[in-house]
Amino acid sequence: MAPTDAEAACFEAGIKFGSLYHQFAGTPVAPESAPSLATAIEESIENQPHCTDVTVDIKTELLAAELAESTADYTELTGRFLEVEIVVEYEGCEVLTRMAMEDGYPLMRLESVRDRD
Amino acid sequence: MAPTDAEAACFEAGIKFGSLYHQFAGTPVAPESAPSLATAIEESIENQPHCTDVTVDIKTELLAAELAESTADYTELTGRFLEVEIVVEYEGCEVLTRMAMEDGYPLMRLESVRDRD
Amino acid sequence: MAPTDAEAACFEAGIKFGSLYHQFAGTPVAPESAPSLATAIEESIENQPHCTDVTVDIKTELLAAELAESTADYTELTGRFLEVEIVVEYEGCEVLTRMAMEDGYPLMRLESVRDRD
Amino acid sequence: MAPTDAEAACFEAGIKFGSLYHQFAGTPVAPESAPSLATAIEESIENQPHCTDVTVDIKTELLAAELAESTADYTELTGRFLEVEIVVEYEGCEVLTRMAMEDGYPLMRLESVRDRD
Repeated sequence: MAPTDAEAACFEAGIKFGSLYHQFAGTPVAPESAPSLATAIEESIENQPHCTDVTVDIKTELLAAELAESTADYTELTGRFLEVEIVVEYEGCEVLTRMAMEDGYPLMRLESVRDRD
Repeated sequence: MAPTDAEAACFEAGIKFGSLYHQFAGTPVAPESAPSLATAIEESIENQPHCTDVTVDIKTELLAAELAESTADYTELTGRFLEVEIVVEYEGCEVLTRMAMEDGYPLMRLESVRDRD
Repeated sequence: MAPTDAEAACFEAGIKFGSLYHQFAGTPVAPESAPSLATAIEESIENQPHCTDVTVDIKTELLAAELAESTADYTELTGRFLEVEIVVEYEGCEVLTRMAMEDGYPLMRLESVRDRD
Repeated sequence: MAPTDAEAACFEAGIKFGSLYHQFAGTPVAPESAPSLATAIEESIENQPHCTDVTVDIKTELLAAELAESTADYTELTGRFLEVEIVVEYEGCEVLTRMAMEDGYPLMRLESVRDRD
């Protein structure tokens, strides 16, 4: 069956999440550089088609706590340090998605699908 | 509104596409190394949840033709050299997606959404 | 033979360049989002050991000119849009490196190696 | 001072290591897909200039052991699962480099620099 607009909107939202995660996972990050990285991630992914809003929170306190127990002063960005919200609009459908840790795995979740008409 | 299973399946399919593209774009590639890269992309993305099949075709002839006009003997993997098909199954819904070039842009497209029940 | 401090400094400088390029190549970028991306690249790579300074210039005018001839309003970051300078200090040796386009290929070059003692 | 050939060879070797790590870190990997990923990493990085040999060992047993304690059946490739050896030849100098874990950090190390003349 041909996909509905809502299904296409959900596909687009998934693309943004996969892109965000696999483009930026592995980036060297420390508490001081986390804010500029979060801003760059938001602005770069917002360039993608149908993407109206990206909010990235890098958990600076968790980062600082882990580095305090390590000999290193930076680490690699991974899902453990990220909370992300992405909003996509496609042909009148608004899709809200979130990523947060669940059972030690960065779970990307479709929160809501809304037909604005 | 809470998402339907079909919408969640489409979201999952989008994640796989975004992951595939942004993990592997930029990889050094030449005609000789294209087959091992295509296999690795397929097998790595098939690890992701609900992903039943990934088929990656790296266009070796186009790659060879472009390199023949260049001083380099390899280039970076980008959408121009890729055709990809991904199948996702989620709660009884099967989603088929494809990526191919359209107007010079690697377009990821939702081909069909099928409720197997 | 065991490497000299200057050779180790050059190795470290190379690591930073390879990291920078392959972490961030492929990032969606447009003229408006280029400044935040350049800042994030600088601050993230400066986290790496022995890296004292990273300067990233994303060529916004070239980006704008290419997008003006396209149907897209963003593109992927690649070497064509980048000029980078990295300074590494290791055991008293300062190494200056640069990346710029040469013959259509993003050439990473060792500019100078200075023993500060 | 202008760099020596040996220093340039070390810089080239560093580029390969940084490229390898930041291109492939984050790739979804499981014990079954590790061999194809290792081969693709070797063949892709060997495309880079002056790179004569790349040997990648993905530690499948460690991977299997970690997954056995998790609810997931794959994870992301990171330095913990990698042992890498890279050989670069530049203007008669051969440089051997290795990456392995040290104190919980994937340390890239310059093993030897040899002038073949």
